[in-house]
Amino acid sequence: MFDFDSFYHDDIKTATGHWKGFPEYNFIGGHNDASMVPVDALRASADRVMTEHGQRLATYNLGDGPLGLRSLREFIGGALAVRADMPTDPDNILLVSGSLQALDLVNETLLRSGDIVIMEESTYGGVISRFQHLDVDIIGIRVGAAGMDLAHLEEQLEALKAQGKRARYIYTIPTIHNPTGTIMPTENRQRLLALASRYNVPIFEDDCYADLIFDEARPPTIRSLDDSGRVIYCGSFSKTVAPALRVGYLIADWPFLSRATSYKTDAGSGALEQLILADFCPKSFDTHVEKLNKHLQTKCDVICEALDKNFGTTAQYHRPKGGIFIWVTLDKSIDILKLTDEAAKQGVAINAGPEWSLGAEAAYQMRLCFGYPEEAEIKQGVAKLAEICQHHFGLPKQISNK
Amino acid sequence: MFDFDSFYHDDIKTATGHWKGFPEYNFIGGHNDASMVPVDALRASADRVMTEHGQRLATYNLGDGPLGLRSLREFIGGALAVRADMPTDPDNILLVSGSLQALDLVNETLLRSGDIVIMEESTYGGVISRFQHLDVDIIGIRVGAAGMDLAHLEEQLEALKAQGKRARYIYTIPTIHNPTGTIMPTENRQRLLALASRYNVPIFEDDCYADLIFDEARPPTIRSLDDSGRVIYCGSFSKTVAPALRVGYLIADWPFLSRATSYKTDAGSGALEQLILADFCPKSFDTHVEKLNKHLQTKCDVICEALDKNFGTTAQYHRPKGGIFIWVTLDKSIDILKLTDEAAKQGVAINAGPEWSLGAEAAYQMRLCFGYPEEAEIKQGVAKLAEICQHHFGLPKQISNK
Repeated sequence: MFDFDSFYHDDIKTATGHWKGFPEYNFIGGHNDASMVPVDALRASADRVMTEHGQRLATYNLGDGPLGLRSLREFIGGALAVRADMPTDPDNILLVSGSLQALDLVNETLLRSGDIVIMEESTYGGVISRFQHLDVDIIGIRVGAAGMDLAHLEEQLEALKAQGKRARYIYTIPTIHNPTGTIMPTENRQRLLALASRYNVPIFEDDCYADLIFDEARPPTIRSLDDSGRVIYCGSFSKTVAPALRVGYLIADWPFLSRATSYKTDAGSGALEQLILADFCPKSFDTHVEKLNKHLQTKCDVICEALDKNFGTTAQYHRPKGGIFIWVTLDKSIDILKLTDEAAKQGVAINAGPEWSLGAEAAYQMRLCFGYPEEAEIKQGVAKLAEICQHHFGLPKQISNK
Repeated sequence: MFDFDSFYHDDIKTATGHWKGFPEYNFIGGHNDASMVPVDALRASADRVMTEHGQRLATYNLGDGPLGLRSLREFIGGALAVRADMPTDPDNILLVSGSLQALDLVNETLLRSGDIVIMEESTYGGVISRFQHLDVDIIGIRVGAAGMDLAHLEEQLEALKAQGKRARYIYTIPTIHNPTGTIMPTENRQRLLALASRYNVPIFEDDCYADLIFDEARPPTIRSLDDSGRVIYCGSFSKTVAPALRVGYLIADWPFLSRATSYKTDAGSGALEQLILADFCPKSFDTHVEKLNKHLQTKCDVICEALDKNFGTTAQYHRPKGGIFIWVTLDKSIDILKLTDEAAKQGVAINAGPEWSLGAEAAYQMRLCFGYPEEAEIKQGVAKLAEICQHHFGLPKQISNK
């Protein structure tokens, strides 16, 4: 047999394993609730757009150029005006294959090996792994109930300046922060902008979960509070309409967007999905998201109750303000990597803290996603996790109603 | 205004320009004939899959794991058995967002700056620009009526060996070579494999256009003639069903495929498009492709006639054996870069030779795509191009029926 091994470089990634299907209790991944996919409305949209625009599929990018379907960009610009106080010119919106492609394009445009980036020390695991793959130096900023700790940020910016160094950008998830589920208040957004201005750093605002707020009003985006063009912004339909529809958007003033667009060399993102969303969203996005949020809030209540009941004081958390995940700090004595392994063996999949955080506490933290499992599965899965934890670490001492 | 310029590295790409719409006569890009999109069948498939599988869109990758929708992989495996003598295990097929992503994954897996790759000296422009972006050394092999010139390949492999160097892979488009439209005969495929074996090099077989053969029988794939696992293979539905559907496939034995899959960090390719193709293809792929090929062959005849009539002996070409493009060698005195510029100003878009070839002749060669423009547009566009050429270079001397 031909041996590829000698053709790989030293930095080759670990091979992907054979797919074994989902675990029984699946608390990982950004999957959503199957019952919440707006199937009927999407089917009706698919039917309409195939009738009206089917022949346009013969043309890369549907003939609307590299930014993608214009009517969808117009919807996004209008929706952001209403929902996030950010009216946006469709010519400053690039449609991408999910927000992950937005991240990749920004990184390809700005980052090279050895560069410095700043981020919340707990953040989306896909961002951490990307930064590591790109061999950039990461500065992690503490996260509290109001999101990024701006005093810590200022300290770090000052320290960089003193060393004659600078960060290429500050990455932040200000609204439904992943994994902590917090929202950065408007005054903090203004202070963050002031710091970015004083130290001359761009900001990359990842607003993927911003439509999934349970109770509070959505604050204005950081980008909307800035008039200098410093803020790059991304959002996604994966979290609201359906994860397997790969449509997100990158927003920036044209000087930057025109650079990032030149790194999008994939001949366009999926056109049918763009067409369907452009038909579905003006009619149904708002009512759909409202319904989805109520459903997710119920599930959030279920997982909080399950954690309280099964883990008691062994598990601490801030109730998420929206989204599909909860960030849990266990007792210091619990080795989360071992717990993650043992739980996986028994069909309970969780994200170990270190995947989602560079902080010292990550060693006993975990992220649990509650969007995908059904309510009964949430209850059973958390109970099972508590049992496994008790078996290996002696905590929680008591599991109520057991 | 915030100035991003000081945040870019020296290798920053040129910015993308504002979209100005398609030119009047569009002979570039892999677009297809709008009338040939199987709209009704795709709409019926969309309706069925939304009904049967809509809820699965809540799950990244539809729950079928990182390789993508299993039923579509099964279709591909079966179709390749029938159409290209290459039965393929669905577990050796990775669904990707168009064959361009397949190229990127193979490159990320195998290539680093300074590596050597071998390719036909005329080849797909997107491959040349990728290799250049990756800063790899390209060895171009001459292309004749039978595709890659294997004597020249052997010479180059021997020269590398003598220098103690080796290529990371040989990239080839053996069936409907882009841009020359040739097909590598089966005996040459066997000889290519023997050379790759003797010099211990992997082969990357890009078979994107292989379904679009006009008259001849499709030869077995190079991969089907190999039993060592040396050959990586890719194909696409963009050229057959619709370009704006971004679904392609990367095929390799698991040791390599599992490595390449780990570089696919986009949370899956578009799921709805996979579902629709998995429904459409078993019913309609063969009949659709047969109809499409007849239509493309007619257009090919039209462009050949238009070239003969308007350019006479100033334009030389081999009639393409399939596909959507023709590779034209003009008189040596014609500066193709200047002609391309002047034609663009007058609404005629063509690919200048140097975009598609490293060969010395590229300076007076061009690629014309005939899939997208209608027959009347082909005739008018080629006539206009001849006029522009005559105006600037004095050739063709006479344009018949003018």
